[in-house]
Amino acid sequence: MPGKLKNIGVVGLGLMGSSIIVSFLKAGCRVIALTPLSEELEIGKKRVLEQLNLCKEMGLLSENEDYYTNNLIICDDYNFLKDCDLVNECVIEIEEIKKDVYHKIENVVHPKCIISTNTSAIPINILQQYFIKPDRFMGIHWAEPAYSTRFLEITCGIKTNVELAELVQKEAINWEKEPTLLYKDIRGFITNRLMYAVYRQGFELINKGIVDLAGLDKCFQYDIGQWITVMGLFKRMDYEGLDKYVSSYSVIFPLLSISNEVPPQMKRILEINGRGIHNLKGLYNHSSESAEILEDNLSTFNEEIYKLADLYRIKLKQFKLSEIKK
Amino acid sequence: MPGKLKNIGVVGLGLMGSSIIVSFLKAGCRVIALTPLSEELEIGKKRVLEQLNLCKEMGLLSENEDYYTNNLIICDDYNFLKDCDLVNECVIEIEEIKKDVYHKIENVVHPKCIISTNTSAIPINILQQYFIKPDRFMGIHWAEPAYSTRFLEITCGIKTNVELAELVQKEAINWEKEPTLLYKDIRGFITNRLMYAVYRQGFELINKGIVDLAGLDKCFQYDIGQWITVMGLFKRMDYEGLDKYVSSYSVIFPLLSISNEVPPQMKRILEINGRGIHNLKGLYNHSSESAEILEDNLSTFNEEIYKLADLYRIKLKQFKLSEIKK
Repeated sequence: MPGKLKNIGVVGLGLMGSSIIVSFLKAGCRVIALTPLSEELEIGKKRVLEQLNLCKEMGLLSENEDYYTNNLIICDDYNFLKDCDLVNECVIEIEEIKKDVYHKIENVVHPKCIISTNTSAIPINILQQYFIKPDRFMGIHWAEPAYSTRFLEITCGIKTNVELAELVQKEAINWEKEPTLLYKDIRGFITNRLMYAVYRQGFELINKGIVDLAGLDKCFQYDIGQWITVMGLFKRMDYEGLDKYVSSYSVIFPLLSISNEVPPQMKRILEINGRGIHNLKGLYNHSSESAEILEDNLSTFNEEIYKLADLYRIKLKQFKLSEIKK
Repeated sequence: MPGKLKNIGVVGLGLMGSSIIVSFLKAGCRVIALTPLSEELEIGKKRVLEQLNLCKEMGLLSENEDYYTNNLIICDDYNFLKDCDLVNECVIEIEEIKKDVYHKIENVVHPKCIISTNTSAIPINILQQYFIKPDRFMGIHWAEPAYSTRFLEITCGIKTNVELAELVQKEAINWEKEPTLLYKDIRGFITNRLMYAVYRQGFELINKGIVDLAGLDKCFQYDIGQWITVMGLFKRMDYEGLDKYVSSYSVIFPLLSISNEVPPQMKRILEINGRGIHNLKGLYNHSSESAEILEDNLSTFNEEIYKLADLYRIKLKQFKLSEIKK
């Protein structure tokens, strides 16, 4: 059940926006779903209801469908946002469009309304400059589909009131998330930043002839996949025995990549305009059939791992393992 | 069914050794299980049979138990190794002891027998110097439990005959592994090297005050865990759309950590002799109960994800997605 943030606005009814809407509905919030494009109102409605249905089929809804549709208004009129406690913008990643949307939102909402963006492309600090009251603005970055993933990054811009971000983090637990608060806005947020460290290191090993691309991929997939869901990074270290890490840090850190170069195979991809499975030009050979299987696989796995992870999540919660040593 | 490597020797009957033995038995190999410590023969026998039983309980054995025990000799006499096609050493990580074991192995096996080590602590290049025929020696590094994980790193030392390593890689597919061949011996092999890049980057973000340790941990766990099992690293990039990575590489690589320093919280851990869940002094607060749950969780999850991953693995195999563009 929602706490202090009961009335939620979501602006933008794309794939991401509609799954975020369903996530809020599932949490018992009232949602104003707004498209900034009147001509997309009908397709937007359809998309939201489709996502709601998918969520229902996954068995993630505890009430019947009416309960959720009664809590939902789909519209193209910004005035409907006036009672919102939180608005989450999910429109296209174009700064000028977002700027225009923010003006329209800020024009109608009450002074205490928190405004947020799902952007992963434009720094929060840059978008924040378009606000009259910038302290109420922050990033709320979801994974897709929002209703069946736990991931949530809440990012403070330089002018964000941290207390508001902490409030959102607290509320996000009611949305059934495992929210992470970023006190500063950094490019790539957390997981991208960490994964880019992996890409940099990975390409270096490949290009030094130590391992081939598929070999490295399998290694990471089958090693990390075997424990990440129950442990995360640092709990894994506690499990493996912390002592052995301290000494190997000083040996291995100096061996790690410090390259800033785009790897040659990625430059070649750029030359042939490779977009991976989207135009069947990628690091791997893809056919339209294999690309489809990959999409299907992710969609089914997503559902399975969400439910599986929960069993372990609940057991550990009892022991408040998420509390960190001071 | 095994191909060219039918007769396998495993030296060392610890937890790792016994689960490797079961992995070979499961693959239909004949196994000589040898303990270098006569006084550990009985406990070693017990350990191997326990692991075989666990493997059976997981439903991973296709034959009845007799089939496997008939293929198994547990002994303390190196002469039993004389007909082995491959010997895998899994004794304690002490160079002098390994050296002694290698002399005893090489003394009895036939000239074509491949000899390997499960070490993760001592470089293959160093151990290789203890061989009369060093070209037949390589690393074969397993994850635990060996019979219910797909991970396998095969590592060439500087004197290893690469063709032999490629033969082992090919055979390892019969052992139901997803084997990775390392053409050169590097510290930390592949996954450790990649994960150390994550640790370095992660601690930097934490120590710059951008995120706290538990927040970063959740982020990585719930983002990566949501897809790693079906995609790996590079297939994920193909899926997300490769084009967007090329431009962000040149932006984000220069922002990544290049620090060689052991993070201060890890130095503090060293000062208090913190060994994580093993002495309840770790990065997280642990109690003996929560440590036990963590162990239980990993053990159950390990089984679940092994089976779950297989569904996706089989579907993709049909399309040979693991073939890389030349």
